[in-house]
Amino acid sequence: MITIVAKTVVIESEIETFINLANELITESKKEAGCREYNLYQDTENKNVLTFIEKWEDEEAIKLHNESAHFTSIVPKLGEMQVKDTEVNLYKQL
Amino acid sequence: MITIVAKTVVIESEIETFINLANELITESKKEAGCREYNLYQDTENKNVLTFIEKWEDEEAIKLHNESAHFTSIVPKLGEMQVKDTEVNLYKQL
Repeated sequence: MITIVAKTVVIESEIETFINLANELITESKKEAGCREYNLYQDTENKNVLTFIEKWEDEEAIKLHNESAHFTSIVPKLGEMQVKDTEVNLYKQL
Repeated sequence: MITIVAKTVVIESEIETFINLANELITESKKEAGCREYNLYQDTENKNVLTFIEKWEDEEAIKLHNESAHFTSIVPKLGEMQVKDTEVNLYKQL
């Protein structure tokens, strides 16, 4: 199992649009066979810090996800609403 | 429910000691009434990036955790093994 934490900082005026589009990505990603968890979290102090926490079965599942139609169509649009590039870490649980 | 992501960057030579001490913190924290999840994750590319992902019932549970004997005795020791301060975010799931 691999856990991904993908932290974004979103332009204030785009927060609602970002969340709506992220929800589309989440809905489609959860349908993928290798997806164990995929949710969006909002910082309680800084509303424009929005972080995905995901769990995937293995590296192959992540590769398929990154090549999926929903990923390749939605993620670039989310990127346009961000203050800076997403901070992504792939983790194994100890 | 509040999710905490606490990301640390640990001095290379201290990784094993850090993990052992973190496991003590995890064991004790999981005994707390308001703790729903408390685990340590290691970055698959950078072994010295070690991140706690925690879930707490509410703010009061986090307050009690921060005042607990295991937190106040172990967290400063973990801090001495880090390259920089822990990056902490408190999140609500959307």
